Amino acid sequence: MTKDVADAIRDRRSVRRFTSEEIPEATLSRLLEAACLAPSAGNRQPWFFYVVRNPGIRQDLAAAAFGQRFLAEAPVVIVACAEPAVSAARYGERGAQLYCLQDTAAAVQNLMLMAEGVGLATCWVGAFDEEAVSKILDIPSGRRPVAMVPVGYSNLAERPKAPARRPLTEVVKMMD
Amino acid sequence: MTKDVADAIRDRRSVRRFTSEEIPEATLSRLLEAACLAPSAGNRQPWFFYVVRNPGIRQDLAAAAFGQRFLAEAPVVIVACAEPAVSAARYGERGAQLYCLQDTAAAVQNLMLMAEGVGLATCWVGAFDEEAVSKILDIPSGRRPVAMVPVGYSNLAERPKAPARRPLTEVVKMMD
Repeated sequence: MTKDVADAIRDRRSVRRFTSEEIPEATLSRLLEAACLAPSAGNRQPWFFYVVRNPGIRQDLAAAAFGQRFLAEAPVVIVACAEPAVSAARYGERGAQLYCLQDTAAAVQNLMLMAEGVGLATCWVGAFDEEAVSKILDIPSGRRPVAMVPVGYSNLAERPKAPARRPLTEVVKMMD
Repeated sequence: MTKDVADAIRDRRSVRRFTSEEIPEATLSRLLEAACLAPSAGNRQPWFFYVVRNPGIRQDLAAAAFGQRFLAEAPVVIVACAEPAVSAARYGERGAQLYCLQDTAAAVQNLMLMAEGVGLATCWVGAFDEEAVSKILDIPSGRRPVAMVPVGYSNLAERPKAPARRPLTEVVKMMD
């Protein structure tokens, strides 16, 4: 059993402090399987995931993310990559510039919600030097790192408060 | 109560046949609230949602989506928009070209999983003429429609089978 989907969506937080406790292999697989269950344009699945447990590599990733040290502290960092050519083969520029980014983002969101569902904490990291990350992980050209997600058990005493959201009235227009 | 998050992720399908049954207002609000609970870079929330129930407008949207008629048949179409300038104000080009697309995609995925959680069906539609959609909905410049999601009750006798996924061994590399 995992958490109710409404609760997972509501309770997910960006956590940047982790214990050193390892994540069981089977749990990691569940997270990755959840990621791969995201929808993708034409079912192209234009994604790839590096699962980084090596501490030295995690330190290098933290440096490539302008010193976001929690990437080195989480037991696992998942680096989500998009493969623009996989989408472009069917959808041209729209595939390369839009669909592959959306598809990988949906995959990352699935992964984060599944993590929340099994009691793990995550944080979506977008600020990093893509070239530096590609070099560290020896990512082939044509595969683009688009998000890094540290995964681990929260080391916070309490769940942080949710950052304020714009009210629905500001971001929704009904067309009846 | 909604569905378990693991089940929602696993059971979500792209559904393109809907009954004409209306969606209760409170349920629609839950979906939109779920969307807005997605993470976003710097909590910028660079999104906006048109909730289209008007049948004539839905027909126009179907035409703008190259004749995907199910957009006219679903009782509601949610048009998710990105606001590149909202992200760019803090993050420059990376915000406009990457973060705002990822943030809105995560919001759409939240919405679709919440829909699955409450027994509604959806489909992520990416193939449409953005200019035509903008004209139909009178979307201001600076707001970009990036996904259309019909929402309704499935009119299929059975849940479709999940399209095949690439095995994890093909899309994951462990770095120990």
